[in-house]
Amino acid sequence: MRITVIGCGRWGSLIAWYLDRTGHAVTLYGRPGSRHMQRFLATRRNDLLELPESIRLSTDLSCVRQAETVVISIGSQGLQGLMDQLRPLTLGDKIFVLCMKGLEQGTGRRLSQIAQENLDPSNAVAVWLGPGHVQEFYRGIPNCMVIDSSREDVKRLLVQSFSSDLIRFYYGEDLIGNEVGAAAKNVVGIAAGFLDGKGLSSLKGALMSRGTREVARLIQAMGGSQLSAYGLCHLGDYEATVFSRYSHNRQFGESFIRGETYTDLAEGYYTVEALVLLGERYGVELPICQAVHRILYCGADPMAELRTLLDRDLTREFGES
Amino acid sequence: MRITVIGCGRWGSLIAWYLDRTGHAVTLYGRPGSRHMQRFLATRRNDLLELPESIRLSTDLSCVRQAETVVISIGSQGLQGLMDQLRPLTLGDKIFVLCMKGLEQGTGRRLSQIAQENLDPSNAVAVWLGPGHVQEFYRGIPNCMVIDSSREDVKRLLVQSFSSDLIRFYYGEDLIGNEVGAAAKNVVGIAAGFLDGKGLSSLKGALMSRGTREVARLIQAMGGSQLSAYGLCHLGDYEATVFSRYSHNRQFGESFIRGETYTDLAEGYYTVEALVLLGERYGVELPICQAVHRILYCGADPMAELRTLLDRDLTREFGES
Repeated sequence: MRITVIGCGRWGSLIAWYLDRTGHAVTLYGRPGSRHMQRFLATRRNDLLELPESIRLSTDLSCVRQAETVVISIGSQGLQGLMDQLRPLTLGDKIFVLCMKGLEQGTGRRLSQIAQENLDPSNAVAVWLGPGHVQEFYRGIPNCMVIDSSREDVKRLLVQSFSSDLIRFYYGEDLIGNEVGAAAKNVVGIAAGFLDGKGLSSLKGALMSRGTREVARLIQAMGGSQLSAYGLCHLGDYEATVFSRYSHNRQFGESFIRGETYTDLAEGYYTVEALVLLGERYGVELPICQAVHRILYCGADPMAELRTLLDRDLTREFGES
Repeated sequence: MRITVIGCGRWGSLIAWYLDRTGHAVTLYGRPGSRHMQRFLATRRNDLLELPESIRLSTDLSCVRQAETVVISIGSQGLQGLMDQLRPLTLGDKIFVLCMKGLEQGTGRRLSQIAQENLDPSNAVAVWLGPGHVQEFYRGIPNCMVIDSSREDVKRLLVQSFSSDLIRFYYGEDLIGNEVGAAAKNVVGIAAGFLDGKGLSSLKGALMSRGTREVARLIQAMGGSQLSAYGLCHLGDYEATVFSRYSHNRQFGESFIRGETYTDLAEGYYTVEALVLLGERYGVELPICQAVHRILYCGADPMAELRTLLDRDLTREFGES
């Protein structure tokens, strides 16, 4: 398959490396001004991996014209902007695969919605989600991930052509649930960072159980399956987010609570605002997301928020509120 | 409330300390031959905590006669034996609270079944389950747990009298699911230890997602609610089991896979045999439990088992098998 990967950050470059390794003809696109791209052009390396010569590097976005499949791995809040840049190319009959976890901050739009609303209907849109660390894939440690799409044929094609001994793909069956779940896990990651920063890591067990629960309720209210919150896209990604020292979202939460600066992208920071919006729109209470939002955006006191969460007059574990 | 706690190990002594702190009149019972008990009698200490003078210590099992509530925290496989010892005391009108996580090895019986089958029907049986580390409770770090019982009045009484700023109790609503889930988490803990021992810790994300799934299916087949696998009793306890270096089950799995000796009680070792039995009885496939069982009991090669798990011809995440 001829594939262009848009985005040359940590994940974009890993995906390019992986798809090349799996036998595809891969072009990696990065913006001309991107520091990552400049480094790849000069040395074919970043801090984590080295790209083989078989991967073509390009800073010309029109390189997507040659691709059958376009894999996108950029910051979620930049997707509409990328779509605006792609419009003049009038692309058709391509498969777009979104390897990103987020929701649009001001609107709550899922990423596949953004793509579908902007692309010609002859294009198909799929998502590639789930756990894994760049470092470990590169070292050859296998993991399980999910591909989902509203197009069954596209899903089957992608699972078959992207699978290898390194990534075992499951067929997703709930695009809404998988996208919302994947986005929301970054918010749970920030909450985990808050707990770590306060020396309360043992509450991460309750966070997992209660966090999945509210995400499951939101997914159900949006028309998805509540079980998706417990799948690879959300719960299956907790190891890499809630428990890993590599997770940007967890690290961001820990730094924030300690009053330290953290500069890497933490998608959950934007996603939490979209989730609070969706909670209001669909009438679903999201106590953990709301607390994270108040702490990040309204200067709420983390310990007071934690006490409120623990004191909530909730008695049944799986009750509706 | 007058309470006797039976069992003076790590958890039994923490529970005695906790219930005393919460305002109850507590007696801690240990067998006369118990090393733990000898040490408490001599110093009121173990390696983790010190018991205040207000807790009465006893090596005479008939001390349970004075109790309104009897809390039991011993190895699960010893519960039938304890019931045999209690029979001559012809106890009645008491509440028995089981703070243990396991299933009977040869029969697959849940612990509340064992208690109920052996006790006079005037007694009530409840379970107290969920996450937490002894070390952290003792340091004052709060957590959430669950109390469940087939008797609504008993559940309400216990939640009200056992709650404090340190443990926030939820009302369980699925005795089958909570007991099976709590027992099964120790098996997932052993599997996590296998992964850690092989340097494959990043697969613990997939283990969480797939492990909860098979436990959910078993609970449902047994007449419980599949959501309980995602509650505090099972998923909520993963932090303390799958990710904690303190977990005996995780440590046991890691030592086993490395060919090292590990002597502490790992409940999951017995529970996995009961789970495989229940899987057969209820016609539920339990790929992870079965793999753990083959590795522990049949000398199967762990890496071959892992490859089989990853290669299973399963394509849908939430399909029936």
